[in-house]
Amino acid sequence: AEIVVLPGDGIGPEVTAAAVQVLAAVGQRYGHAFRFEEKLIGGAAIDATGEPLPMDTLAAAQRADAVLLGAVGGPKWSDPKAKVRPEQGLLAIRKALGLYANLRPVKPHPAALGASPIKPHLLTGVDLLVVRELTGGIYFGQKQRRADAASDLCEYTVTEIERVVRRACVLAGGRRGHVTSVDKANVLETSRLWREVATRVVRDEFPDITLEHQLVDSMAMHLLAKPREYDVIVTENMFGDILTDEASMLAGSLGLLPSASLGEGRVGLYEPIHGSAPDIAGRDIANPYATILSAAMLLRHSLGLESEARCVEKAVDGALDHAVFTSDLAPAGRGVGTRAATAAVLEQLQ
Amino acid sequence: AEIVVLPGDGIGPEVTAAAVQVLAAVGQRYGHAFRFEEKLIGGAAIDATGEPLPMDTLAAAQRADAVLLGAVGGPKWSDPKAKVRPEQGLLAIRKALGLYANLRPVKPHPAALGASPIKPHLLTGVDLLVVRELTGGIYFGQKQRRADAASDLCEYTVTEIERVVRRACVLAGGRRGHVTSVDKANVLETSRLWREVATRVVRDEFPDITLEHQLVDSMAMHLLAKPREYDVIVTENMFGDILTDEASMLAGSLGLLPSASLGEGRVGLYEPIHGSAPDIAGRDIANPYATILSAAMLLRHSLGLESEARCVEKAVDGALDHAVFTSDLAPAGRGVGTRAATAAVLEQLQ
Ligand SMILES: CC(C)[C@H](C(=O)O)[C@@H](O)C(=O)O
Ligand SMILES: CC(C)[C@H](C(=O)O)[C@@H](O)C(=O)O
Repeated sequence: AEIVVLPGDGIGPEVTAAAVQVLAAVGQRYGHAFRFEEKLIGGAAIDATGEPLPMDTLAAAQRADAVLLGAVGGPKWSDPKAKVRPEQGLLAIRKALGLYANLRPVKPHPAALGASPIKPHLLTGVDLLVVRELTGGIYFGQKQRRADAASDLCEYTVTEIERVVRRACVLAGGRRGHVTSVDKANVLETSRLWREVATRVVRDEFPDITLEHQLVDSMAMHLLAKPREYDVIVTENMFGDILTDEASMLAGSLGLLPSASLGEGRVGLYEPIHGSAPDIAGRDIANPYATILSAAMLLRHSLGLESEARCVEKAVDGALDHAVFTSDLAPAGRGVGTRAATAAVLEQLQ
Repeated sequence: AEIVVLPGDGIGPEVTAAAVQVLAAVGQRYGHAFRFEEKLIGGAAIDATGEPLPMDTLAAAQRADAVLLGAVGGPKWSDPKAKVRPEQGLLAIRKALGLYANLRPVKPHPAALGASPIKPHLLTGVDLLVVRELTGGIYFGQKQRRADAASDLCEYTVTEIERVVRRACVLAGGRRGHVTSVDKANVLETSRLWREVATRVVRDEFPDITLEHQLVDSMAMHLLAKPREYDVIVTENMFGDILTDEASMLAGSLGLLPSASLGEGRVGLYEPIHGSAPDIAGRDIANPYATILSAAMLLRHSLGLESEARCVEKAVDGALDHAVFTSDLAPAGRGVGTRAATAAVLEQLQ
């Protein structure tokens, strides 16, 4: 299988290197030939080529079986007047590959509960999956800027809503069969359409799925007060962005949360939900688990290698069971480095 | 002083009745003549007049010194095909009165920490104030609906951003002098404008205020992980809606959080941040504290009665100190009713 690796900026190179090591070890153990091809994206690509997503990178991604991405962005490219920004590379590759469904599972590991701001008794049994719409909404609508005003357009078509709701329902079918659709239907027209379409899709195509609607403001609350009650949460792009960062606190650290971005095609994009953390870049501090767990999702969703995926997930669980914590998970000032955490996962893999 | 009371729907009538009782008691004790005039808004107004904000209600509000509102909405008026919705009444009165700054203080009471999903040690010393822009953004931009698509426009002018940032800075000046401005400047054009304007306003007009920028997704996380570090948080309408419901979990219950909506004029609108909770309406279950605390903000911001405002806040604190908890704050199945909680506040007032 061909895997394109996009390290990107900040801690991106360190965490993708960790995940590639793990994938290579899995390949060896199970007898798969994984070929890794490294390409530029984000700030690194701007520096080298002037563009956040060079044609060459996109072409390689389109030919590949899967794409593994680190993170993009950093202060170096954050001048508000800059014409090109690293984030554009990320948005462009999601859009160009048609990756409309962003899967963000949240399942707190018992050993990491100490790092969560949430009371532990609320977290036992939490196992939720946010399916965030990723190629529509206010992220991609027309943007305008005048001297005295600015605007962003939030748009959704019926087709865009249908396909992501279907994906959420299929995933819920393999889980507890419950879907919570999140919108702001008491204010937004796009949300009223969202609610109508979600209701119709579930009624007509997924009679066995139970569907519940939540307003995004209430959801931001209930996610903390009763996280156990949710199974699959499906929502639009911006709400999904906010709610998944919030949900990461259930797991104790953003550094534990992987994601998979899928479309109708074969190729998927796998990335940790954390950012490029430029303040700790290059210092062997970053938590590699989220990217390693993203590699597990890659094995599952793009390569169809379910046992291999589980093997990686169990190895990360094992490292956490042994309290191999990077500094985001450990009490202040403690914690092992990126390389040591990766080594612990590799060891558990055997 | 003339106070227009808009009970609205669901638990609205019960909680506004409680707050009016408290205001009347304060008036008597301090020798102020408060006149209360009750008007229709929301679903109740739709039922009676066909409109969610009758002219008569708006005219009364415009003449008044302050407006006290309960909540609007409920399943009865939630048909997705309905032409008029209760929430339109709320949005229309905010807009018509020019109430662009929505103040939502969050200061967890020690006695209520048990009800919060957050670990108690993170909550001691938390004292933050969210200033939410209330008359712009995607709430009020053009909405469109076609058979196969829908859209909402998010717009901000420089003037709209300036005035709410100024208000946040003035408020921060009377507190710890720190403002956190929340946006999504790595994606949205309106957010890039927001960030530029906030930076300029603070630099040119409030040199003593320290300003920090946060992306909304990170903020949703940091609000839980290190709530003590925030003083005043200023943000646009939709982000403020989501973040304040999330922040309510710091205080233990949405039923404890008041709000004040202010403009350049004299009249302000005061309402709890919770909704109409139709499931518990009319059953003497609702927590009246958020509305009573909103009445305290009314005394402070519209009537300039600071000692009276403190007196009410101390009375609610006192009731909480004595563990007078409604069911949202008490262990399952326990808790006193709306009337008993109100009586406890009235008693503390003496
Ligand atoms: C970097 C940014 C554009 C991105 C997003 O908002 O989608 C990130 O926050 C994420 O969640 O993947
Ligand atoms: C009822 C709804 C329109 C309202 C809002 O979104 O502003 C409410 O959630 C609030 O926060 O006051």
